Amino acid sequence: VVAFSSGNHAQGVAAAARILGMPATIVMPSDAPRIKLQNTRALGAEVIFYDRKRDKREEIAARLASEKDAVVVPAFDDPHIVAGQGTAGLEIARLAQAFGVTLDAVLAPCSGGGLSSGIALALSHESPGTRVFAVEPEGFDGTRLSLERGERSSAPGDGSSIADSLMSPTPGAIPFAIFKATRAGAVAVSDAALVQAVSYAVRELKLVVEPGGAAGLAAVLSGAFDAKRRTIAIVLSGGNIDPEMLTRCLNG
Amino acid sequence: VVAFSSGNHAQGVAAAARILGMPATIVMPSDAPRIKLQNTRALGAEVIFYDRKRDKREEIAARLASEKDAVVVPAFDDPHIVAGQGTAGLEIARLAQAFGVTLDAVLAPCSGGGLSSGIALALSHESPGTRVFAVEPEGFDGTRLSLERGERSSAPGDGSSIADSLMSPTPGAIPFAIFKATRAGAVAVSDAALVQAVSYAVRELKLVVEPGGAAGLAAVLSGAFDAKRRTIAIVLSGGNIDPEMLTRCLNG
Repeated sequence: VVAFSSGNHAQGVAAAARILGMPATIVMPSDAPRIKLQNTRALGAEVIFYDRKRDKREEIAARLASEKDAVVVPAFDDPHIVAGQGTAGLEIARLAQAFGVTLDAVLAPCSGGGLSSGIALALSHESPGTRVFAVEPEGFDGTRLSLERGERSSAPGDGSSIADSLMSPTPGAIPFAIFKATRAGAVAVSDAALVQAVSYAVRELKLVVEPGGAAGLAAVLSGAFDAKRRTIAIVLSGGNIDPEMLTRCLNG
Repeated sequence: VVAFSSGNHAQGVAAAARILGMPATIVMPSDAPRIKLQNTRALGAEVIFYDRKRDKREEIAARLASEKDAVVVPAFDDPHIVAGQGTAGLEIARLAQAFGVTLDAVLAPCSGGGLSSGIALALSHESPGTRVFAVEPEGFDGTRLSLERGERSSAPGDGSSIADSLMSPTPGAIPFAIFKATRAGAVAVSDAALVQAVSYAVRELKLVVEPGGAAGLAAVLSGAFDAKRRTIAIVLSGGNIDPEMLTRCLNG
């Protein structure tokens, strides 16, 4: 199998390939966090680097797949990936029921939209009154832009963000269709808000969350999403953060 | 109420006093981690410092309690404290049952022994085949020494340890009686093992654990406790670690 990923999908694909006894090649950005690179290699995958600014990772992955006669496992724009990541939505619905609450909103990190649209799809069945909000880094907020314009659009995506896992400038076609159908919302957060959220998670929740994984928390803490008088759930997804970034966030 | 504590019991007492509308005074070591001091004060308690080397915190607490006509809430040598902390043992027994496993051993951090003896007491009823191991920092391993000698004894306690929450050199009388009655064991761990465990918890478990809270994990990772072919549970208790110490452990 071949996959392209900033590092979290990479680890998932590498782990699955190992269980199935298949070779895995992962196309990762050259500036991916060290911990993601190490974990992906430790799971037995071969890593091919690309330059975020210069190369198109989809093309590299397609070429590799053709050379190796392998299948590309996409990170988000695929019904199986959306369905699999959407099981988080089923868990949220079950937990809300166990706590006896009805959720007004669920906030989830969003890059290409696999996780957040999967959750939106699951909740549209399990908890139709709950609205899902995709949270993206500023400058990479293609879902927010797309929902505003009513058609799939790209954010500039030429700046930088500490949310290395959320840097897809355009939502996937399938995720975007689900966002529209489920009337999902979207919110953008700054690096400063992400730093604050990573630090809050360590200090108050005792959880290690990477910047992209803390996007939903960042939206609430910074006020980008107004949680007052609302019952909400926040999805914290991704804890692969290098010690230097963790230290930077704690001192931020 | 008056309590003496390195900082975790302090926060618990301060929180309880606030709920009950009572003033709380906590006697804390002058070198307590900043986060514990801040949290205790944020919960509305007054903090009185003592010097670990020079002062006897029990005497200061007793004098304060008499001056203020207040009750001292002990950190470990009290049947109610042991019973309350022992509810962790009931949870462990319930979780083991849910997972369909029988635990050979449970490792828990140990200072004066309130938590670990409470767990031992609970498991002696709920899971009699499970043996509890109290894990202490080297030099403060009074429980290990006491069990070895068959009578309550004190470790030197004159060195230092990064496990600021586990620096009682002597087990409480009630905890020690429970350790003996339940045939509990004890293990000592080095600072190097604690550093490794805090770092492992961040990298692999995505959990923020303070050095003392990670003592059980340190015992397993360092080999001080041999977990091979045993089904075990490790209690991680306490996540109040200053950013500097967290950084030091991650770079350790």
